[in-house]
Formats: sequence, C-alpha cells, structure tokens
Amino acid sequence: MADSGKRKREVVDGNSETEGQEETRKNAVCNEAGDNDDVASEFLLSGFETKAILRDSAREKNIFVHGKIDDQEAVVILEKTPIREDSLSELFKNSRLKLEMRNDIYSTYHLHPPPHLNEIKTTVVCPATEKHVKKYLLQETFLLEETGEDYRSITLPFIQSQSFSLQWVYNILEKKAEADRIIYEDPDPEVGFVLLPDFKWDQKQHDDLYLIAIVHRKDIKSLRDLTSEHIPLLCNIRRRGEDAIQKRYGFPATKLRVYLHYQPSYYHLHVHFTSLSYDAPGCGVERAHLLSNVIQNLQNEPQYYHSRTLSFPLRADDGLLSRFKDAGRL
Amino acid sequence: MADSGKRKREVVDGNSETEGQEETRKNAVCNEAGDNDDVASEFLLSGFETKAILRDSAREKNIFVHGKIDDQEAVVILEKTPIREDSLSELFKNSRLKLEMRNDIYSTYHLHPPPHLNEIKTTVVCPATEKHVKKYLLQETFLLEETGEDYRSITLPFIQSQSFSLQWVYNILEKKAEADRIIYEDPDPEVGFVLLPDFKWDQKQHDDLYLIAIVHRKDIKSLRDLTSEHIPLLCNIRRRGEDAIQKRYGFPATKLRVYLHYQPSYYHLHVHFTSLSYDAPGCGVERAHLLSNVIQNLQNEPQYYHSRTLSFPLRADDGLLSRFKDAGRL
Repeated sequence: MADSGKRKREVVDGNSETEGQEETRKNAVCNEAGDNDDVASEFLLSGFETKAILRDSAREKNIFVHGKIDDQEAVVILEKTPIREDSLSELFKNSRLKLEMRNDIYSTYHLHPPPHLNEIKTTVVCPATEKHVKKYLLQETFLLEETGEDYRSITLPFIQSQSFSLQWVYNILEKKAEADRIIYEDPDPEVGFVLLPDFKWDQKQHDDLYLIAIVHRKDIKSLRDLTSEHIPLLCNIRRRGEDAIQKRYGFPATKLRVYLHYQPSYYHLHVHFTSLSYDAPGCGVERAHLLSNVIQNLQNEPQYYHSRTLSFPLRADDGLLSRFKDAGRL
Repeated sequence: MADSGKRKREVVDGNSETEGQEETRKNAVCNEAGDNDDVASEFLLSGFETKAILRDSAREKNIFVHGKIDDQEAVVILEKTPIREDSLSELFKNSRLKLEMRNDIYSTYHLHPPPHLNEIKTTVVCPATEKHVKKYLLQETFLLEETGEDYRSITLPFIQSQSFSLQWVYNILEKKAEADRIIYEDPDPEVGFVLLPDFKWDQKQHDDLYLIAIVHRKDIKSLRDLTSEHIPLLCNIRRRGEDAIQKRYGFPATKLRVYLHYQPSYYHLHVHFTSLSYDAPGCGVERAHLLSNVIQNLQNEPQYYHSRTLSFPLRADDGLLSRFKDAGRL
C-alpha cells in the first residue's frame, strides 16, 4: 500500500479538481447494500450542517463540503453526472423549457429534467479526520524559479532528506509487480525502459490515453540530471514508445503529447505519453517539458538542464516550498 | 463584428469543450421574452429528432447534439449548471439519497434533487447551417513539428496568404476601441505595450484571471520572429505586467503563468497572463511557451527561435495542416 500511495501522490499533486474523488473511489470497494442501509441512508444528509466549502469547480460541476452529520465530522462530495446519450430522447420528451433569451437563430433556456434523469453523484466520508479535510481543501499553488545553484543547494538536499522509497518502481522493472501491465519493454541497461498504462487510464477508450515509460537506469533522478550523454536514451524512448503505442492501440504519434514533469512525483526518470486531445493533469506549460524540446536543447547545449533556471508549481503545503522560503528565495 | 470574430478564433481553436457555447453566448444579446414565447418554447424540444452527437464532455457535463426541430436543422447544446453554494442547505434537506456502496468510512449515493435545484442550461441554434454543425463538431488535432526552414517555406507564406486583418489590434493600441478596458499601458514605441483583460475573463473572481499584453511594435508576428534584440521588450512586459496585475488586482506574480502561444491566434506579438490555478485553454505544453524560458533561451542563443524545431497542435480543418501535407511534411 505504501508503494501505491506514492503513485497516488501524483494524482493529489495534479490539477484535476476531481482528484480527491478519484482517490476515494480507489479506496472504496463496491459492497452490496441491504434494505436497512437503504432506509437509513435516504435522509442521511437532511440534517447536514455545512462548515466550509473545501473546493468547487464550475467547469466540472462538483463541490467538496466539510460539515457535520449527527455530531460527527464529515466531508461530502457532490458531482453532477455526465449527460448520457441514451437518455436524450426521454430528456427531450419529458422536460419543460423556460425561455431565457432569444436573438436571431440563437435562444437559451432553463431545462428542468425529471429527477431520475438528473442525478448528483454523492460521496460521504464520515467520520472524517483533519487529514481528510486537508486533503480535499484546495491548496494554493505558487510558481517557483529554481536556478541550477538553487537545485544543488536547496532542492537536491531536500529530495535526499525525504528518502522516498522507489521500491515500487524497482518491482516493476524487475517484474516483481505489475508484469502483466507492461505493454512494451526494451531491456537494454543503458537505453532501455518499460512502457505501461498509467493508473489514471482504464484503457477502455483512447480519449484519455495515458502511458508511462520508466527507464532501466537507476541513476537519473529527473530532468535536472540530463546531459547530452542521455540523448540516445531519450531518442530511444521517444521512437520505440511511439511505435509500441501505434502497434498496441493503433494510436499515431502525431496525436501524442510526450513529456517529462519537473518537479516529477518520484525521482526515477520517467516519460509521460498522453493523448493530445486529453487535458491531462500536469500537462500545463508550468510543469511539463516536451521530450522533443528536451532532446533539442541537449543537442545544442550539453549542460542545458544543469545551468538553466526552471520554473515549476508547488502547493502551499509542500515541504520544498518552506525550504525555498527558509533560504530567502521566495 | 469581423474584428471581434478574429478574437473568437482563439476560443474556437482552444481546447475548451465549452468553446462553442461561449461563442453562442457572445453572439446573443439578452432579450426579455414575452408570455407567448414562454408557452411556445415550453415543449420546443419534445419532438426533437437526434441525428448525431457532435461532441460531449464527461468532465464538463455537456453535450452538443445535431438534429431536427419541425423539419428545420438545429444544434442543441446542453450543459449541467455548477452546484451553487447557496442552494446546498435546500439540496440536502429536500433530496433523497440512494445508497450505492459503503466501505469503512466511505460511502457513495445517488442523489435525486428536486428539478428546480438541478437545471440544465440549454442553447438552441435553429435553423442551423452546415457551418454551425461543423463548428461544433469535435475536430481531431495533430501535433506538427515545424523546423525553421518549414516556417519560412510553408508557414510564413500561408500566414501572408490569409491576410488576417489586425485592425482590431490597432484600434486597441490607438485607443479607438476598448480604451476603457485597458488596465495598464507603457507607451514606449520600442518596449511598450497595453495590458487588458481577455474576453474570456469577466474580472469577477481571481480563479480564472486572464489578461493579455499587446505590444506597440507592429513588426513582430510571433515567437518565431523573436531574437536577442527583443529581450528588453520581453523583460519589460514581464516586469511591468506583473506589477500592474499586483497593483490592480492584488494578485502576486508567484501565482501567475506568463506565456506566449505558438501558433498564436493572431500574428501581432502578445503575451498571456493567467492564474496558475486556472486550467486556461491553450496553456498546455504543446502550445504554450513560458515567457521566462523564452527570455533565457534568447539570452543564451540569440537566434534560438529562428533555428529550432517547434511543435504545435493543429485542428484537422486548419488550412496550415493541408499545406504541411502538400509539402510532404506530414
């Protein structure tokens, strides 16, 4: 569990507003509920006292609320459900429209569908600890500028002090775990890697295609360690990774976004492959570096990533942020 | 209208799933509707025949449907409304929950709120032309790799052949339009610029803060034209833009993402300032270039953006894509 916890960190650090809910789903195994449960639950929230809105997203139509259920701390997560194609004809037939405005060929309406066609998915965490509340609370993020010197004097010592376990990565590389999930491997110790679907992708549709290439070499922590020496490794990942995705999923390289994160979620070099049309968490310019640009930069300047100032976002509660503050760099 | 049409292109080219709806809202001026209209509209969609789903987003809870209303072509856009904080207590009091599963402290439910608390915003375009249908249809996007030579032999001639009007930009710079929207100006002809809120931002909250700096110089089309000569201009935009946003909105530079697009929506140099916590359309690594990186790259290599291969996404219906295909570059 500690191992998979590391990978969830990536989700928690990402920008997706539904990340908390994602994790809840993972924690929860679907149980059949009895009739008694049904009756007890029906009015569970009727006396809910709201204490605070932890976060909400107008874009994703969700809200995370902290409050009390019968004197117990609770977090309630509401999210409207997607509009299903197979419910459209009933929706059109049985809903009333209220005109809002009309202009030329355009008009807008308020539509009030029957309750059974317009559900809100509700997740309750109860009793909730302070840790739960903190997890769901939207954290401010700050953009840091890290010089090469900052990396060596602040970031690197911080990474080393954290002694994150990479055992789960080594388990994958040594086929001690997730061997059945690997979709391609180049076993070469210098330029080799394994390619497997990211946990966020269920492989059911290509819309949100997401794979990760993890290198066999254990001596490259991140983008910061890359020099022109690593160009053959990076070119190999790009070419063979794209080929493998084309072969396995029929998904062409021209529709892929191939990039590294800085800071990464774990300090063993890995590369993200996501569908260009998927707004993947962490693909923003403040954290992602296109592999093709990384290769070009190293070709033109072997020590590019040792010497440049790199920007990256950090959540307010990230320990690295305090280190930058302590060093008077923020 | 032609002028503002140019700026809408930016929305249409972006990745936001709601872009079509955005534009509809802009086209439509809010009219008061009479009682007769109300009655006529109430059942407008009851006989709607669906022909095709043009696009939908499970994340944003919307769907774009092509079909017929009384033998007329129509596009209907449905989008669930955000969950409002001020409706929560009524929602909790008056909704029934149906237990889905329970596991330890986690449980999930189906919640069916009363119709008046759970609206779907509906937009109807009728009669709709083929152009409307095409506009709302989700277009595939492809990642292009443009070398410096490709730019000069394919992209630049294409841009010139399009003769996009930049009159709306000049109107802003000369205070013939939108003068009241400008929040800061440096009038210097070499390093000066105007800063104003992007149309996508209503300035009501900082969550989706979005401003644009437009340079006074008229001879810089895009990132591709930048050389070390322009470093003072770029540094000036960054420093004074950040200062102006801090002064006007109390919003600090450490929470800003400052970047250029390549390709841009219009070929007059401009810089985007967005809130780091806002997942702005077009802030992905495949299209955005952090201003701080651009400055560094030019400091280290004066002709960086003339010589490098740059990647960018193009929609399947973009004329530039055909040019790359015709040149055998795709």
